[in-house]
Amino acid sequence: MKAYRDLSREELLLLKEQLEQEFVDVKGKGLKLDMSRGKPSVAQLDMGMDIFDVLNSGSDLTSMDGVDVRNYGVLDGLAEAKHMMADIMGVSAEQVIVYGNASLNVMYDAVSSAMTHGVMGGTPWCKLDKVKFLCPAPGYDRHFAITQHFGIEMITVPMTPQGPDMDMVERLVAGDDSIKGIWCVPKYSNPQGYSYSDETVRRFANLKPAAKDFRIFWDNAYAVHHLYDEEERQDRILEILGECEKAGNPDMVYEFASTSKISFSGAGVAAIASSQKNLECIRRTMAIQTIGHDKINQLRHVRYFKNFDGIREHMRKHAALMRPKFEAVETVLERELSGLEIGTWTKPKGGYFISFDAMEGCAKAIVAKCREAGVVLTGAGATFPYGKDPRDSNIRIAPSFPTPGEMQMATDLFVLCVKLVSVEKLLEGRNEA
Amino acid sequence: MKAYRDLSREELLLLKEQLEQEFVDVKGKGLKLDMSRGKPSVAQLDMGMDIFDVLNSGSDLTSMDGVDVRNYGVLDGLAEAKHMMADIMGVSAEQVIVYGNASLNVMYDAVSSAMTHGVMGGTPWCKLDKVKFLCPAPGYDRHFAITQHFGIEMITVPMTPQGPDMDMVERLVAGDDSIKGIWCVPKYSNPQGYSYSDETVRRFANLKPAAKDFRIFWDNAYAVHHLYDEEERQDRILEILGECEKAGNPDMVYEFASTSKISFSGAGVAAIASSQKNLECIRRTMAIQTIGHDKINQLRHVRYFKNFDGIREHMRKHAALMRPKFEAVETVLERELSGLEIGTWTKPKGGYFISFDAMEGCAKAIVAKCREAGVVLTGAGATFPYGKDPRDSNIRIAPSFPTPGEMQMATDLFVLCVKLVSVEKLLEGRNEA
Repeated sequence: MKAYRDLSREELLLLKEQLEQEFVDVKGKGLKLDMSRGKPSVAQLDMGMDIFDVLNSGSDLTSMDGVDVRNYGVLDGLAEAKHMMADIMGVSAEQVIVYGNASLNVMYDAVSSAMTHGVMGGTPWCKLDKVKFLCPAPGYDRHFAITQHFGIEMITVPMTPQGPDMDMVERLVAGDDSIKGIWCVPKYSNPQGYSYSDETVRRFANLKPAAKDFRIFWDNAYAVHHLYDEEERQDRILEILGECEKAGNPDMVYEFASTSKISFSGAGVAAIASSQKNLECIRRTMAIQTIGHDKINQLRHVRYFKNFDGIREHMRKHAALMRPKFEAVETVLERELSGLEIGTWTKPKGGYFISFDAMEGCAKAIVAKCREAGVVLTGAGATFPYGKDPRDSNIRIAPSFPTPGEMQMATDLFVLCVKLVSVEKLLEGRNEA
Repeated sequence: MKAYRDLSREELLLLKEQLEQEFVDVKGKGLKLDMSRGKPSVAQLDMGMDIFDVLNSGSDLTSMDGVDVRNYGVLDGLAEAKHMMADIMGVSAEQVIVYGNASLNVMYDAVSSAMTHGVMGGTPWCKLDKVKFLCPAPGYDRHFAITQHFGIEMITVPMTPQGPDMDMVERLVAGDDSIKGIWCVPKYSNPQGYSYSDETVRRFANLKPAAKDFRIFWDNAYAVHHLYDEEERQDRILEILGECEKAGNPDMVYEFASTSKISFSGAGVAAIASSQKNLECIRRTMAIQTIGHDKINQLRHVRYFKNFDGIREHMRKHAALMRPKFEAVETVLERELSGLEIGTWTKPKGGYFISFDAMEGCAKAIVAKCREAGVVLTGAGATFPYGKDPRDSNIRIAPSFPTPGEMQMATDLFVLCVKLVSVEKLLEGRNEA
């Protein structure tokens, strides 16, 4: 295929006409698909239904260390739930506090508590003139929403296939003590599906932040969310807590994980992993905030998955559903856009998203065009701080929720919109020239 | 019985010797009972076990308005869960947002969010020089712990059988705009079991606070927790939201409730009820904090209890277990202490506690004495702000957790300790005189 930019004005105009006709046809089909969020599909959720048979009216609801999970007590989670969440994060159970149904809430609480009470004895952030976070972007919009909510200034750090631009991260955190944190999705990142290289993780562990209360918010959301069963096709990342300890920075990380995309979304079990000093500080706040999280749901999860092998086995079933959809998107993108030089995209081996970069200035228009024909994508810009993609280029594709057939239709529409908007953009440029 | 204070020094000395001997005997029994918290008993928890049969692997997990409760979405709770929680509080479903497993966390979040973001557009409390709360006392220690955690100054307001001293409440809130809230347990209060009179509720609704962002934190924790089935032996309180609306103060209340002491402690469903304006403000923060609370547990609860009659029926079974224990305590207190003038106690018709007032300066010693013989009570002072009972008099008795037999033994020990400490106190006074 010839790159669009090498087409003549006449060729572009002709192409535009064809594409517009195709768009009218597709629009006529009356699609109605929501690909805006990383939601598990119904088929995935159906796979976890046996969890409801794990506990019944005859069950013994005593935990392994003798706790009646139906009653108050056990602030920081059942021992067996700590083990389960530790296995997911590749840490030890002593490094874990188990929470309620979602890790987003744990992250929110971590920032909120730093605002009102500071981090490990430091000044409450709300008492400081300025608090800043580094935001590798494209990234997760809900991370950025938390920092924005608390009036924390966000500094965009470019992402690379090896992780955030570490030269920039090192320089910024060393030189500015108002920089208190950085948002990271280290494995199968949202939205690009990149996994941090060993060098990146080590450079994180060896940061020399000017702020003593600087914390890395390590959202290990997709720790076990591989698309392929073969180990050589799975990403591995270094375990950050251990690396930080080696580097003499034992307290620098809050790691988060949940089973939201393992068992059920919004009805799973979440957890934090950190150093003992951080956990002690967190427990002091937790003791005020709650008598304890839902231990029955913790027990239900542990008895269902049994052990880490059980989780891996379950995730292999998820992968069998996710893989064809990711591959269908990639096949269509490859077939329809390859060589046109109007977009690039990532080819993740796990996680929930594919990241697409359109020609500069086209993302918003593509998303709007898709919506016009009935396919809702994540809003353009959402993957950047303040919802503003400076290049208006990045689009997050979420293949998890639709069926494979729907995914096919949605991607066909998507590439059509990419072509159409790109042609319009190129023609605009010609007119201006 | 002759009042202890009317006994001669010699009589007191003789009595002391007898009581000390009795204490040695009881101590020898090696009791080991924890009556420190309002925990449901095992028998109570067993009554709710059928809830685990409500959902199984074959269940349809679709809510009444078509939501797949296993997936993300529905920020403020399932429609049917809103109805359930609204019925418990006697409000309408539109006034309710359903939360996670515990109302304490909802209260914490309400205060925390007021600190960082203010209430309905007001100045964030953390930006103010001084924030104060009124704390009717004796009251619930975990309420006081939240305000203390956020550095909010607590002002003690005396409790009466009709509720807090409303003359004082009215005067204080009208005259000081740094008073931003008041903690209330309006029905079967913790620890006295008092229910606010209609006049008290109306006076609350008609408060004229100097602070526009003053809120009544109305913890309706024991809304359906009657000890007696006969309606005439059950307390009723006026519905505060409606009264506030009538009084032209529609936004003045946050009401809280949960099923922690209906279904399972720490694995129930919690909720807030408030005006539309407050709820809108709360939703804006919630949208940042979470994608949604555990809807599966919400559905499980609704399908189990079916409707408000189901909840009432369930609570009648709880009452059948609680009643004899409350009555056993009262019988022993009556039999052993009546006429001695060394203590008074409340006779609640619901809730989880009996409140005991010892002679001034005796509470700490009585609690310590009980602990010496193996019975752990709530720490003396816990029912007051900062854990300091100015008269060192109030002790919270929590009859819910022990079996009736244990309760009997514990109360026998308790009255013995009350007698012993009182005699010692009286002798001390004689020596000083």
